[in-house]
Amino acid sequence: MHQMRFRDPAGAVRTGEYDEESDAVTAAGRTYDVDDVDVLPPCEPSKVVCVGRNYVKHADERDEDVPDRPLLFLKPPNAVAGHGDTTPLPADRYVEHEAELAVVVGEQARNLDEADALDAVAGYTVANDVSNRTDQDREQNWVRGKAFDGACPLGPVLATPDEVPEDAAVELRVNGETRQSSSTEHFVFDVPALLAEITGYLTLEPGDVVLTGTPEGVDELTDGDSVTVEVEGVGTLEHTVERA
Amino acid sequence: MHQMRFRDPAGAVRTGEYDEESDAVTAAGRTYDVDDVDVLPPCEPSKVVCVGRNYVKHADERDEDVPDRPLLFLKPPNAVAGHGDTTPLPADRYVEHEAELAVVVGEQARNLDEADALDAVAGYTVANDVSNRTDQDREQNWVRGKAFDGACPLGPVLATPDEVPEDAAVELRVNGETRQSSSTEHFVFDVPALLAEITGYLTLEPGDVVLTGTPEGVDELTDGDSVTVEVEGVGTLEHTVERA
Repeated sequence: MHQMRFRDPAGAVRTGEYDEESDAVTAAGRTYDVDDVDVLPPCEPSKVVCVGRNYVKHADERDEDVPDRPLLFLKPPNAVAGHGDTTPLPADRYVEHEAELAVVVGEQARNLDEADALDAVAGYTVANDVSNRTDQDREQNWVRGKAFDGACPLGPVLATPDEVPEDAAVELRVNGETRQSSSTEHFVFDVPALLAEITGYLTLEPGDVVLTGTPEGVDELTDGDSVTVEVEGVGTLEHTVERA
Repeated sequence: MHQMRFRDPAGAVRTGEYDEESDAVTAAGRTYDVDDVDVLPPCEPSKVVCVGRNYVKHADERDEDVPDRPLLFLKPPNAVAGHGDTTPLPADRYVEHEAELAVVVGEQARNLDEADALDAVAGYTVANDVSNRTDQDREQNWVRGKAFDGACPLGPVLATPDEVPEDAAVELRVNGETRQSSSTEHFVFDVPALLAEITGYLTLEPGDVVLTGTPEGVDELTDGDSVTVEVEGVGTLEHTVERA
């Protein structure tokens, strides 16, 4: 099932079932064209825990080593945006896209074992880990680089785990041109390993999000670009960027 | 004025006026001994934005340079704890205390100018930036090091800005022994400079917290330690730690 969170034309926030074929969402007995509603991020995370260099070829293209344990960083709620939103690019900064599978947490989780970590997963969505390299490459912690407003478009739906294969294709297009094309089969650390590692330190809350890292092909985003991120089994996130 | 947030004996969450002399809090026409209520963190931040090496002597004791712009890092809501709470120390890790003045944001703020940045401040509280050095010293982003559960005790009150001098004494004691003793007059970057820098990238929300860095004297915390952090004009935060 694919759930979509949205504001209906009367202003009510609803969660409904999304039908890809008709591009429509049904909630509370009514069906809406997706064009007629405001699509919201599929969850309201208290934090987004992100993982860097989780695909070997992306670590290579950034001239970095693959870490011996997950390289963690954080995006706070101000970074979260939704399908159809416009991310402001920090002024005078070189900014890149990063297509990612996003895990949405379903229950409060701490000290998960890998063996049953997936029980804590509500489902999956699609993310663009928008990255301000100018600052990221000169700071100890990637706050200016990764946590700026709008740096985490998420959506458009929450797909239940049964919808998403272990080797889901991950693809990103800018203005229709393919920039990233890989598969989650190339993860360095898989989702259970990430959840076990993170919850060894932090409690994850329902609605929290774990970003699983990006494959190779990251490249520049510039004013007016239209970005499409597609993860097999989940859906297609579309958003734009503009220079602040 | 010093505001205290607490759960009263009936379970209601209230914000009242704290009187230091009688150690009592008055809300909704009733006065409670502080010992009879659960003191809560004075705010519910969506994020805590922290600053590293904002006192020269602390940078020195850590053998680090003073940065040319604020060194930012994040603590998510799972890190927040309150007066009287017990922070679990991550197993087998070397953990230190860091006494800090904490700024509580009063209104949504973005792109603040230094000249009027203080208008966005609701007041001040006291924090211990509990730091797991074992992990901090080997990771790019200080997530394991700084964002673990309970790593940000805050409280006990929110003091309005008029209560807090620019050269407020900052002191930390462990089991009654003074470990840190300095003053906010030694900030490398003052509060307006921090708020302007942070809001150049991130929107701060009401209740968000900015930690202003710690002075010299950081040292180990071990199982059972009782920690007291005092900031002149604000109040005295007490909490304990135990080995997880």
